[in-house]
This record gives sequence, structure tokens and C-alpha cells, in this order.
Amino acid sequence: MRSKTGFVSGEELAKKLNFSRTAVWKHIKTLRQNGYSIEAIPSKGYRLTCVPDVILPDDVRKGLKTSVIGRKLHLLPETGSTNTLAASMAREGADEGTVVIAELQTGGKGRLGRTWTSPPGNLYLSVVLRPDIPPYKAPLITLMGAVAVASTIREQLKLRAGIKWPNDIYFAGKKMGGILTEMSAEPDRIHHVVLGIGIDVNMDLNELPAEIRRMSTTLAVETGGKIDRTALLRQLLSELDRWYAKFLENETSVLAEWRKLDITLGSRVSVAFGPGAVMEGIADDLDQEGRLVLRLKDGTLRTVAAGDVTIQKGAGDR
Amino acid sequence: MRSKTGFVSGEELAKKLNFSRTAVWKHIKTLRQNGYSIEAIPSKGYRLTCVPDVILPDDVRKGLKTSVIGRKLHLLPETGSTNTLAASMAREGADEGTVVIAELQTGGKGRLGRTWTSPPGNLYLSVVLRPDIPPYKAPLITLMGAVAVASTIREQLKLRAGIKWPNDIYFAGKKMGGILTEMSAEPDRIHHVVLGIGIDVNMDLNELPAEIRRMSTTLAVETGGKIDRTALLRQLLSELDRWYAKFLENETSVLAEWRKLDITLGSRVSVAFGPGAVMEGIADDLDQEGRLVLRLKDGTLRTVAAGDVTIQKGAGDR
Repeated sequence: MRSKTGFVSGEELAKKLNFSRTAVWKHIKTLRQNGYSIEAIPSKGYRLTCVPDVILPDDVRKGLKTSVIGRKLHLLPETGSTNTLAASMAREGADEGTVVIAELQTGGKGRLGRTWTSPPGNLYLSVVLRPDIPPYKAPLITLMGAVAVASTIREQLKLRAGIKWPNDIYFAGKKMGGILTEMSAEPDRIHHVVLGIGIDVNMDLNELPAEIRRMSTTLAVETGGKIDRTALLRQLLSELDRWYAKFLENETSVLAEWRKLDITLGSRVSVAFGPGAVMEGIADDLDQEGRLVLRLKDGTLRTVAAGDVTIQKGAGDR
Repeated sequence: MRSKTGFVSGEELAKKLNFSRTAVWKHIKTLRQNGYSIEAIPSKGYRLTCVPDVILPDDVRKGLKTSVIGRKLHLLPETGSTNTLAASMAREGADEGTVVIAELQTGGKGRLGRTWTSPPGNLYLSVVLRPDIPPYKAPLITLMGAVAVASTIREQLKLRAGIKWPNDIYFAGKKMGGILTEMSAEPDRIHHVVLGIGIDVNMDLNELPAEIRRMSTTLAVETGGKIDRTALLRQLLSELDRWYAKFLENETSVLAEWRKLDITLGSRVSVAFGPGAVMEGIADDLDQEGRLVLRLKDGTLRTVAAGDVTIQKGAGDR
């Protein structure tokens, strides 16, 4: 419903929507509680002055056509870590595909015990998965998550996002996202996996500590405008749903797509294994379990399961 | 202090212990709360009629010379599952080596989602470990646990206990214990491992469901007398301490000892992988990651990471 002044009277709204005046007033109240700013002037009516940048469950569900991922959605204004919360739900029996999303994290986690700075405006979500695989195949879940994120950004925003092994999302040499996979398992059997995803969308880069700010970027910065996070999230859930179905059919099916989106292979890289331990070489390929194969100076091949990769003349870690 | 009738007067006790009469009375009360049965007849004094079969923390600590395992001990009369409780403590930051022991479990867990019937009289314990290894090496922790248990039984009770791959403790074709390893991890890094151990010590075998009773035995049955669980536990903690130190130095060091205690290798076995999927062959060896290498009828070798092994003419699972 449009009007020249932007104002619509309560009476008009009630007629148009076939609501009582009281019902209109109640809906206005609910919208305001959800962050919508609505001006009300007795002689003129109501006017919408600000649509909040908030993800609402119903907006996400609208048109979501996934079969597993996101059938159960939990949205929180704030949490310590979506991975920690999702893991706790998984232990209590949460269904496969359960998704936990938070507007901000107060204790966001990165790989290898690092923190993941999580100001408002971005996407922070964790997905509960229950694949019937042994733990040594779990690295493939990280790769799958990275493929889903990079594909979503390419599809939805036409930005050529790439993946740095194993889990970082890059654009033009700067980091804009990452994956943290955590699992609970017996040595030969996974109980559940929590696939955590962080994407830098609309945040103010000044919210990041100075030392990582220059190596980071956001989707809003790269596209030059504020991003509709709900649409992006919906696309991401749908990509995850598609890739997870493929994964369950054939665990290594994601490797070919990963190679297409990758920015690591073929580069000279150094891999840090902890304080002081560094290996240098050319990133040669991935093996069937998603580990990085390095070609050392003397031509020998070394397989790397863990560690921090720096692409020479590339970017660092968050 | 001995007396012909078994009775000792409060006055004698007070003198001997250099306690006040009130202090004696308080100690008697504490002992009774801990399950000691003490008769008291005004003209005669006190008489101990029953020493409870209860594990007391101070008794365990007395003479315990471990450097890591059991430095923190939690003893509970009852819990759902010691593994679940220890995992929860581990998430909250419990030190490496923390041990949780319960007199009985109401929801004891076995491998592959099975239950572990846990009546009173046995040993049920879980150890928190934080080894800096990738998840694919976790099967070696199970083997290490099995070696510590079998060695403890051999050392302490002179019973030739053996190990059925990967985690069962056997004696003369019957099961008397098992290991359940669970972990929380990233794909390339373990956060913590909970090593769960159950040993059938003094329980009444009639407490087990009929279908597993005939394949089960206890240490008491095999030695022909009630076992001192505290001494057994102390020895077990000390074996775990010793083997874990070796493990941290060299993860595969346990394999040689495992082979000595094993009853699987060289036997004809069938391995069940789930409903209907069974593979038969000769158990040939373990590989460096603790997986079972099977020699099939046609001579080809197959490596088995998971599954249920039945030794032909051997015993089944609990």
C-alpha cells in the first residue's frame, strides 16, 4: 500500500487487510518490538521510517525449499558461540539439519582454539549433522561447508569468492568468512558434527581488531551496498542442503567442486604446525580425505592434515 | 585393636587414639554413614560387624603414585554414565587425568550406541585426556586403555586376561570388561578424549540380562573370591598413567604390548558392519593406526576401522 506522504491511516490499513482497528494496532506493536520504526501521527496515520536489519525466522522459512538443513531454525539476538549451543542441542538429541543463528557472538570460536570476532551485521550459524562416517572423514565436511559458502556468494552476489585450504573464504586476497567443524565421536563413528559458518556481511570493519582488519573485508564493502542477509542465508541453507545430500551419497563428491573454487593449489605456501614449526612448498593437490598434499623443494610430497596455510603474497588469518 | 568378643569400649578407643569420647562417637557416626555396620552395646562397647564394599577417595589416593591420571578423583554412588559426566567436566575445563568413578551407572554406555549394564560391585570409570593428536589416531587410545586393563588384571590377580579387538577384555572365552573411547574434536585436532572403562569385578552375574550372562564372567568368579576393588583401581590408574606417558612420547608404542595381550590375531573372525553386512577372514595384524587388517579367503587384505568382531568359536558382545 503506497501513499504520497508515506502515511497510511489505521482505518485504511484495517479495511485493506480486513483486520479490526485493534488488530492493526497490535500488529504495529509487534513490528515495533521486532525493530521496525513506525511513526504515528493521529491526523495522518502510520508511516514506516526504518526496516531493521534483523533476521526473522518466518522470513527465512518463507520460500525455503531444503529437505534437511534448516527444517528446525533457532534465531538468537546473541549467544556465546553458535557452535557451542548447537553442540549442546545435538547432545540433547536435536534433529539433523537443526540450525542455530545468532545476530552476534560474545565468544565466537575460530579454528585451533582461536577467537572469531563476531560483531552485529554478519552471519553466524551452526548446523547439526549426523553423518554415518568415521572421524577421519570429517575434514570433508569442512570442505563441503566452504564450497556451500563460496557458491552462495558467487550465485547470490556475483562475487568471485574463493577458498583457502581448508576453511577460509577469500575475495581478492582478503578474508570474508570461515568454517569451524567440531564433532563428538567414538574413534570409529561420529555421533554428531557441528558445522559452524561465519560470513562477514554488513559489519563495520572498524569493529575488528586492527591487526586483522587490513586482511579482512565484507560482502557489503565488496559489492558497494548493504546486503539482504535473509536472502543470503536462505541461499546458503539451500546450497548446504544440496551439498550435504551429495556428500551422503558419495563423500568425496565435493572435492571436484572444491578444486574449482580453491585459491590454494598451485601456489607457493608455508604451513605452520605450531610455534616454530613451518614447512614450505607448492600446494599440489588434495587427497581423497581432504588433506593438503605439499610438494617440497626437493620434489617429495608431504600430506598435511592440520596446520595454518599462508599463501606467499597472500593474506593471513583472522 | 583386637578383643576376644570383638567389642571395644568407647573409653579404650578414646585412650588408644588420644581422642575425646565425643570425637570417638563422631567418628563412629561417620563410619556408619559410609556403610560400616557397627554394633554398640552399652556395657560392652562397639563392635564392627560389616566393612562395606565401597570405594573411598582417601583409600584410593593412599599410596597412589601416578603423575597425571587420577590426580583429581570424583567418586559417585551413582550416575547416568561416567563418560557423559566426564565429558561434561572436560568441556568445563577439567584437568587432564581427571577420573570419574561411579558405584553404579543407570545409563551405562557401550560401543556403537549400545547399553552397558552396570550393577553395583564392579568398576566403572572415565578418564579425561587431552592429547595433542588428530582424531584419526584416537583408536590407539582405545588400545592403550585395553592394554592397561588387561595388564592390571594379570599383574594384580594373576589371571591371564586377553583383549579382543578393539576394546573387549576376555578371560577363557568370556567377557569381563570393555573400553568406550569418546572424543570432542575438530577434524584435525582433538579437544579432549574421555576414556571409559568398565570391569566386571564382584557383581552378581544374575544382574545381567540372560542373553549376555552366559558370555560374561567376573574377576570374583574367576579367582573364586571377593576382589578388593580399591587396590585393583589403584593398580589400574597406575598402569594408565604409565601407558599414557608412553603414548605421549610415541603413539604407536602400545601396539607391541597390545599384540602380546591380544586374542584376536591369527583367529578366523567375522566382522559385522551393521545389519546384514558381514566380512569373514583371518585377523592378520593391526596397522599403525590400530585398525584391524583382515586376510580374506582369496588372500587379499582389507583394513577394518569399525565393526563388531566375532571370533569363530569365541564369545559375543555384551
